[in-house]
Amino acid sequence: MNEQELTEFRKYREKMNEKILGSDHLGIKRFFNLDTQAYAEGALDAKTKEMLGLVASMVLRCDDCISYHIIRCVEEKVNRQEMIEVFNVALIVGGSIVIPHMRRAFETMDQVLSDQTPAAETNP
Amino acid sequence: MNEQELTEFRKYREKMNEKILGSDHLGIKRFFNLDTQAYAEGALDAKTKEMLGLVASMVLRCDDCISYHIIRCVEEKVNRQEMIEVFNVALIVGGSIVIPHMRRAFETMDQVLSDQTPAAETNP
Amino acid sequence: MNEQELTEFRKYREKMNEKILGSDHLGIKRFFNLDTQAYAEGALDAKTKEMLGLVASMVLRCDDCISYHIIRCVEEKVNRQEMIEVFNVALIVGGSIVIPHMRRAFETMDQVLSDQTPAAETNP
Amino acid sequence: MNEQELTEFRKYREKMNEKILGSDHLGIKRFFNLDTQAYAEGALDAKTKEMLGLVASMVLRCDDCISYHIIRCVEEKVNRQEMIEVFNVALIVGGSIVIPHMRRAFETMDQVLSDQTPAAETNP
Amino acid sequence: MNEQELTEFRKYREKMNEKILGSDHLGIKRFFNLDTQAYAEGALDAKTKEMLGLVASMVLRCDDCISYHIIRCVEEKVNRQEMIEVFNVALIVGGSIVIPHMRRAFETMDQVLSDQTPAAETNP
Amino acid sequence: MNEQELTEFRKYREKMNEKILGSDHLGIKRFFNLDTQAYAEGALDAKTKEMLGLVASMVLRCDDCISYHIIRCVEEKVNRQEMIEVFNVALIVGGSIVIPHMRRAFETMDQVLSDQTPAAETNP
Repeated sequence: MNEQELTEFRKYREKMNEKILGSDHLGIKRFFNLDTQAYAEGALDAKTKEMLGLVASMVLRCDDCISYHIIRCVEEKVNRQEMIEVFNVALIVGGSIVIPHMRRAFETMDQVLSDQTPAAETNP
Repeated sequence: MNEQELTEFRKYREKMNEKILGSDHLGIKRFFNLDTQAYAEGALDAKTKEMLGLVASMVLRCDDCISYHIIRCVEEKVNRQEMIEVFNVALIVGGSIVIPHMRRAFETMDQVLSDQTPAAETNP
Repeated sequence: MNEQELTEFRKYREKMNEKILGSDHLGIKRFFNLDTQAYAEGALDAKTKEMLGLVASMVLRCDDCISYHIIRCVEEKVNRQEMIEVFNVALIVGGSIVIPHMRRAFETMDQVLSDQTPAAETNP
Repeated sequence: MNEQELTEFRKYREKMNEKILGSDHLGIKRFFNLDTQAYAEGALDAKTKEMLGLVASMVLRCDDCISYHIIRCVEEKVNRQEMIEVFNVALIVGGSIVIPHMRRAFETMDQVLSDQTPAAETNP
Repeated sequence: MNEQELTEFRKYREKMNEKILGSDHLGIKRFFNLDTQAYAEGALDAKTKEMLGLVASMVLRCDDCISYHIIRCVEEKVNRQEMIEVFNVALIVGGSIVIPHMRRAFETMDQVLSDQTPAAETNP
Repeated sequence: MNEQELTEFRKYREKMNEKILGSDHLGIKRFFNLDTQAYAEGALDAKTKEMLGLVASMVLRCDDCISYHIIRCVEEKVNRQEMIEVFNVALIVGGSIVIPHMRRAFETMDQVLSDQTPAAETNP
């Protein structure tokens, strides 16, 4: 995803999650809570768990899930080389069918990484 | 897998891998090499990569792959609590369809962990 | 899907189905017939069958199939609460990987439901 | 599954579920609860929900999940003709790759249905 | 599959197909017919079509489907080197998750090929 | 894909492949090489292998992979009737969930075939 697509993705995701949770279905609400908790630090740290979520999303080939976990991975300080290693494991396990998703993941990764760069670092 | 099933799995895996590599198909041979290298220490350590392989195998629901990565995870010192956290991420991402595989994974994990316990620790 | 996307989906679907059937491949034609008949009332009523088609489409994560079965479910008088229950079963069985599709399904459902409301009912 | 396989399936399922829940992982425990609740009567009755679970399990091709939902469907009074209609929807949506699972599902269905027949009905 | 497993597979497949077709569900019967016709010579010859069925079964990871198409491929004179090329395409497209199925496919292939060898050819 | 979408697909594919290979990850580079080699003439000719890649992409439901293999199939002289036979095998194996991808594949096929027609043939 490029910059504009990422902005739209975040907005749509937020808007529809609100709508889903607003439907007051207890099962769905609880699932969303469990989903959040699954990536919280526990026996494994949050960084490792986000990489687990990323590789699982890639082999299952869900672009939105991949984008979400790339965003979270960058927040948890997964660097570019580490992220590419996760992509490589997904590629080996999932095969060439993963490649179109990896192309989009590379774009998303570089967009999110460039967004993260604080102005202070580039403008002294 | 219980003890006997694990022994048979290892034997069958070794025998058939030999047969496959013995067919001298260059593409297949190279794929097997790439597969091995994908889990070698690089930007990420081998322990993290084996957990990535495990979660990917669980959401894709391949029992043999799960067993293999559990064995490798134990060799890389993933402990029981960490392994269960990997199972939980797979369960959240992949849903209840993962549960039958998680049942077998728990059995395999406990079998492999008990195999690892050195005699010295249990017999002083 | 929003209103415009739904209109385009219906038009593209109709245009391409005509092209596919126009290719005069007997196997494909017969498959399309079987597909239609599978949802006709039999031992189970059409409403139940459409819900079966919807949940199957969600766990297999096919947006077009989901949209199609939402349209058909509304025609068969599946109400909003019932539809959300189907979504919940899909979420539990298929896991968080289903969520991006559920977001789009909520939008489609609410669009299709609002299209169904006859003017007479809201403007007396 | 034939009679013996069904007995072993139930025993193994129960034993390993106990082990999994005994691991005291809060996320996994809550998921198991959500899974149970998803099939409880709500906007849709339990019978319909079990058929939804069955068709989802078939298109995702998980034999253990299929067996479990067949057992539950029979308990919720889904009859043979209705069950076969569910199989047919799964076959159309999921394709010929579903057939080996449908073969096993037919065996399981007929076994479970024959187990259900109370002696009183057949021996007056 | 080894020799005994192949015999049992064929017997179980035949027995259950009879039971399924005996249920007199028109949709299922027609699907089985379409399935057979899809591999009959047409614009493509039967040999090519069986290889298409084999590669599709491998990337979808269905052991029974793989075994069935290996048997049919051998009947259509696909030789060992050609079959291994099909396996390699499946491996590249589907990834390492295909490997456990490829191990079993190699065993099945060699069993079926050795069954085909007429005694006259090996014992002059 | 229509003409414009095909042009964009090719450009994006080329741009991102360069970026991916530019990351200098040895495993990914080697996988890309293996992927190319898998479709080169060997025991099977390139035409057959591209059809294998196409059917595998369709049952795994990856639009980009389908488009790519349609382009390559046309280059290897797979004609329209042969291509539709490949689609039919994918439909039977993969089920109705393949239909939305087949709709797009028909559009792509006819676009690519019309691009191939040399001006000389249509303008004498």
